[in-house]
Amino acid sequence: MTKVAIVGASGYTGGELIRLLENHARVEISAITSRKYADTPIYKVHPNIRNGLVFKDLKPDSLDADVVFTATPHGASMKIVPEILETGAKVIDLSGDYRFKDIAVYEKWYEIKHDSPLKAIYGLPEIYREEIKKANLIANPGCFPTGAILANLPLSKEKLVERIIIDSKTGISGGGVTLSSAFHYPNCSDNVSPYNVTRHRHMPEIQQELGMYSNVKVSFTPHLVPVIRGILTTSHSFPEDNSVSSEDLIKIYKKQYKNEIFVKILENGEIPQLNSVRGSNFAHIGCFEIDENGRLVIISAIDNLVKGASGQAIHNMNLISKFKEDEGLNSYGLHP
Amino acid sequence: MTKVAIVGASGYTGGELIRLLENHARVEISAITSRKYADTPIYKVHPNIRNGLVFKDLKPDSLDADVVFTATPHGASMKIVPEILETGAKVIDLSGDYRFKDIAVYEKWYEIKHDSPLKAIYGLPEIYREEIKKANLIANPGCFPTGAILANLPLSKEKLVERIIIDSKTGISGGGVTLSSAFHYPNCSDNVSPYNVTRHRHMPEIQQELGMYSNVKVSFTPHLVPVIRGILTTSHSFPEDNSVSSEDLIKIYKKQYKNEIFVKILENGEIPQLNSVRGSNFAHIGCFEIDENGRLVIISAIDNLVKGASGQAIHNMNLISKFKEDEGLNSYGLHP
Amino acid sequence: MTKVAIVGASGYTGGELIRLLENHARVEISAITSRKYADTPIYKVHPNIRNGLVFKDLKPDSLDADVVFTATPHGASMKIVPEILETGAKVIDLSGDYRFKDIAVYEKWYEIKHDSPLKAIYGLPEIYREEIKKANLIANPGCFPTGAILANLPLSKEKLVERIIIDSKTGISGGGVTLSSAFHYPNCSDNVSPYNVTRHRHMPEIQQELGMYSNVKVSFTPHLVPVIRGILTTSHSFPEDNSVSSEDLIKIYKKQYKNEIFVKILENGEIPQLNSVRGSNFAHIGCFEIDENGRLVIISAIDNLVKGASGQAIHNMNLISKFKEDEGLNSYGLHP
Amino acid sequence: MTKVAIVGASGYTGGELIRLLENHARVEISAITSRKYADTPIYKVHPNIRNGLVFKDLKPDSLDADVVFTATPHGASMKIVPEILETGAKVIDLSGDYRFKDIAVYEKWYEIKHDSPLKAIYGLPEIYREEIKKANLIANPGCFPTGAILANLPLSKEKLVERIIIDSKTGISGGGVTLSSAFHYPNCSDNVSPYNVTRHRHMPEIQQELGMYSNVKVSFTPHLVPVIRGILTTSHSFPEDNSVSSEDLIKIYKKQYKNEIFVKILENGEIPQLNSVRGSNFAHIGCFEIDENGRLVIISAIDNLVKGASGQAIHNMNLISKFKEDEGLNSYGLHP
Repeated sequence: MTKVAIVGASGYTGGELIRLLENHARVEISAITSRKYADTPIYKVHPNIRNGLVFKDLKPDSLDADVVFTATPHGASMKIVPEILETGAKVIDLSGDYRFKDIAVYEKWYEIKHDSPLKAIYGLPEIYREEIKKANLIANPGCFPTGAILANLPLSKEKLVERIIIDSKTGISGGGVTLSSAFHYPNCSDNVSPYNVTRHRHMPEIQQELGMYSNVKVSFTPHLVPVIRGILTTSHSFPEDNSVSSEDLIKIYKKQYKNEIFVKILENGEIPQLNSVRGSNFAHIGCFEIDENGRLVIISAIDNLVKGASGQAIHNMNLISKFKEDEGLNSYGLHP
Repeated sequence: MTKVAIVGASGYTGGELIRLLENHARVEISAITSRKYADTPIYKVHPNIRNGLVFKDLKPDSLDADVVFTATPHGASMKIVPEILETGAKVIDLSGDYRFKDIAVYEKWYEIKHDSPLKAIYGLPEIYREEIKKANLIANPGCFPTGAILANLPLSKEKLVERIIIDSKTGISGGGVTLSSAFHYPNCSDNVSPYNVTRHRHMPEIQQELGMYSNVKVSFTPHLVPVIRGILTTSHSFPEDNSVSSEDLIKIYKKQYKNEIFVKILENGEIPQLNSVRGSNFAHIGCFEIDENGRLVIISAIDNLVKGASGQAIHNMNLISKFKEDEGLNSYGLHP
Repeated sequence: MTKVAIVGASGYTGGELIRLLENHARVEISAITSRKYADTPIYKVHPNIRNGLVFKDLKPDSLDADVVFTATPHGASMKIVPEILETGAKVIDLSGDYRFKDIAVYEKWYEIKHDSPLKAIYGLPEIYREEIKKANLIANPGCFPTGAILANLPLSKEKLVERIIIDSKTGISGGGVTLSSAFHYPNCSDNVSPYNVTRHRHMPEIQQELGMYSNVKVSFTPHLVPVIRGILTTSHSFPEDNSVSSEDLIKIYKKQYKNEIFVKILENGEIPQLNSVRGSNFAHIGCFEIDENGRLVIISAIDNLVKGASGQAIHNMNLISKFKEDEGLNSYGLHP
Repeated sequence: MTKVAIVGASGYTGGELIRLLENHARVEISAITSRKYADTPIYKVHPNIRNGLVFKDLKPDSLDADVVFTATPHGASMKIVPEILETGAKVIDLSGDYRFKDIAVYEKWYEIKHDSPLKAIYGLPEIYREEIKKANLIANPGCFPTGAILANLPLSKEKLVERIIIDSKTGISGGGVTLSSAFHYPNCSDNVSPYNVTRHRHMPEIQQELGMYSNVKVSFTPHLVPVIRGILTTSHSFPEDNSVSSEDLIKIYKKQYKNEIFVKILENGEIPQLNSVRGSNFAHIGCFEIDENGRLVIISAIDNLVKGASGQAIHNMNLISKFKEDEGLNSYGLHP
């Protein structure tokens, strides 16, 4: 059995890692850590999980694990990841600290000085599978970027568009467990609330990855919607070659993702919805309609806590551990 | 007292007309009609309203009213409006039947042959106030068009942009009382569901009005969100003159709407949200941010059943009846 | 015009007072106070309200008002109410500080020493109308007690039952604006959460009022449900005289409330629902069914922020000011 | 591999059976049937499931299965179950048709004449485990009865109470996929709606099971709450022996359920909530508080589609097939 530890396990992504790992045949959880909840039984924080685990306040060098998930906030991961790597463990970091190829971009958007730059692989298996298999440090992608990059990767690779407008709708769990007026039930129920309309820090992450293949410029706006989990991404763009049809695009997308277990290209006419992926690691991509003005719409749906965070992290663990790629991740979503 | 009748009063817009008219000092409701609920007391259909009214199955020529609201479906209004007009009543029609200047556009998008074309005024007071005052037949705007046109009118008037991408999020009440799998609670709660992604019939209505002032091309995509009431419209565009600033735009918008009671241009930094307009006739417009790629975002929020339907219809009635414009409509929204 | 001031106006009940008073023809708001939001324009706290008001940090003795609403927390009201009364203003207090006839009960359940006991009238107009008209200090009832007392008052008056089990379901706004993990959207959406199951401080308040007429013993359990506003109270009891029928009970209830504007006794077969009273000052009471085991069920529905707080406070103001009882309060609820 | 077929697989319980069976190592699905969706690929009905299955319109005698789940409506099951049994398959019926020991009770409450009474075992493993192992026909319990019986079984067995008042709150999926005004999103969102207040057909089912051990009389009232999945049951009763303490009750409950994998007795002070069991087969039972009037409150939480239907059905299949009891059912719920 592979031993795994989860640092910062009291948040939503921590809870989700534990929930999913419970159904993984090849690992055992050696430690779940939390400073705030040290010595607290897990069910007091994650009332769905009743497996006897107890949070511990452990130092990075005493984790005793083959793989460590750092579900710590931006800025906190960089303080502990180097030390964990020194123990010989592989690290899958769920924060933004190691996602950027250019540290200056990170420091600009996160407004934090990076004090331990390290070589990390961006953990989107659909792009970096082979590099991930050999990596010691994986920067697990952000939730919006996961949905947005998968929805637009072939457009950029095929150099079909110059600009992409990404209008995303996210469930409130994307904001984490930290209390905020914006996440107070009476304020966000029955509401839609755009935020960081032109300045969300996931924008440069999307731009970094889609910009690898073409000069495409990405614009991004997120909205809070009264949903617990899920990100629905609506991508608007104008293919320059107006002979490109929906059918052509479906072919291109099916080809791009033909070996991908977790990416489902929906048939012509089927539109992705959040309630088809709730709780699962699947990304649904579809629509591909082009309107009278030549605007193309591509839509993706993911669960922000699974494919957009903890599920993808386990996918990365499976890759670096040479497990079956979908081990522990092959459940379908809850519907309804 | 002005006598008003409501034809097709059993739907959501009918109920909302009655709710709002109850607080209107200058009118009395002479009849509420419904074939399906003939002789049923109102509270059995609209359980919030307990004013003793009873639905009647009345012919168009026996309504005995100065102003008649036809809250009837597309295709049904055209069958009765001519006859009602003959009684001398003025008509405010909430369907799509009289909204199009070009009948061919209507027939293409609604897939109905129009058998009684009549001169009607498009009932958006912010554009057609003077014409409305003299009209006998008013075509009350669609819900999406109300939010989208108000958010983009100055952009078109000032010829600032060539294309506008309108990404709208609507509450489920926009679909009316008719049962549908798409509106079944377990299917739409905790979900976001794009629909008629490139083919919604409100698109040509938006195009008609915004296209009056420039060659702007409108692209439109609606999404169902788990909200009862409200339309949040996110408008993405690329101003050609990249010296235009957010401050310039706020000035232009404030000037355009300076005499408008129901349009509130929010201050720089304030973002419209649905829960600020719930139950009210106000439209909030704001954001005006421009991102690094020159993309401008303008956001509007309305209550689809009030400003997007029944409230606007009463505003139109106030105009044709020479009442105070905000008579019966000056309540603020419910928050939370 | 009567001058009114609202102390502690930044919370939900404060916002609701302002929203409702905007439609009141006989008053003007002379001040809204908040220490935290001193000099902040109202829309930054209550984004629905755009009337130019600004929060002020005023001392109790400088409010310049005929009627003062103290929408302050338990324990805070008692610090300021005596001083406000000295200015000659009448006070309607929305906290629990003056609701108890027996200070010892207050101190036991609120775990606060009461340092300024004063004679106050319990502001439930359906019981204390005449006393309210002559009062200087009114203790506005709690939200759960409003729904529970109205639903059970005739049972106690007629000495029909010995015990009442009150199972209430409340919207999350009942918890106010203070952030809490229990009100964090991902934790309370799609959830039902019982709390203070046998120890809620509204229990002794209900007991106090229902216990005035008989020896009835009240048991009370509240539940948080994913609703913004509203309290649905299900009252279970066993009439001792098993010849009492549903029809008898409807008659008794109709008689009790026959002159009450805001209490609607529903017809046999109609069941109260929250979405019939949303945003309104009406209380709906109905059901009156008796099962095979002799259990009687009575159900009431109110909006916790209106009839359960701010609307009822305005009703009380109307009484002490000799206004029409329903001035500013006669709007029907939002449905849907 | 055991071959299983699902008759009536297009509803929510059908979809849930397929979702759960996908993670079951010992079975293969030989057929999913639906008359309405014959020859339709599964994802068009259950968009979360993309396993290539296609609905078939098969006769009962051509199912080719070792175990057949009949997820058919009341009244429909009795038409096909006898024929399926003749093929030699074991049948787990999710309707109410075979749940009653006394056919007259069924016929009274379901208002259907029963034309094929058969010996069936009531499929609540916590009571009938041994009988289930030997059964050919299992009547899978109703959703409310599952939560209510588990919450009250020890009370009845120990003869602690004479009457139990069960106040249940159910998610809307309990109503199934059939469209109804009561399940129309704008009508049930932000609402609480009691229904069949004293006449729900699950009452006699609860009474039948709890009445096996004592003369306890059960009163039952269900409420629709705006939740997709889950039943929260609040049980109110008055233990006759007022020396019984919460601690005593916890001991009794822990003893009763000590070998039950799927029943979790929560610790003193922990209150069951729906979001701890969402998507899982666990039942949480807790509270055990007794108030000043001697009222005892016991609360249970289940997912109505899993423990209350399809998960329990698979548990029954595991028992009759001699599989591990929790095979395919050991996932924790989604939280948040």
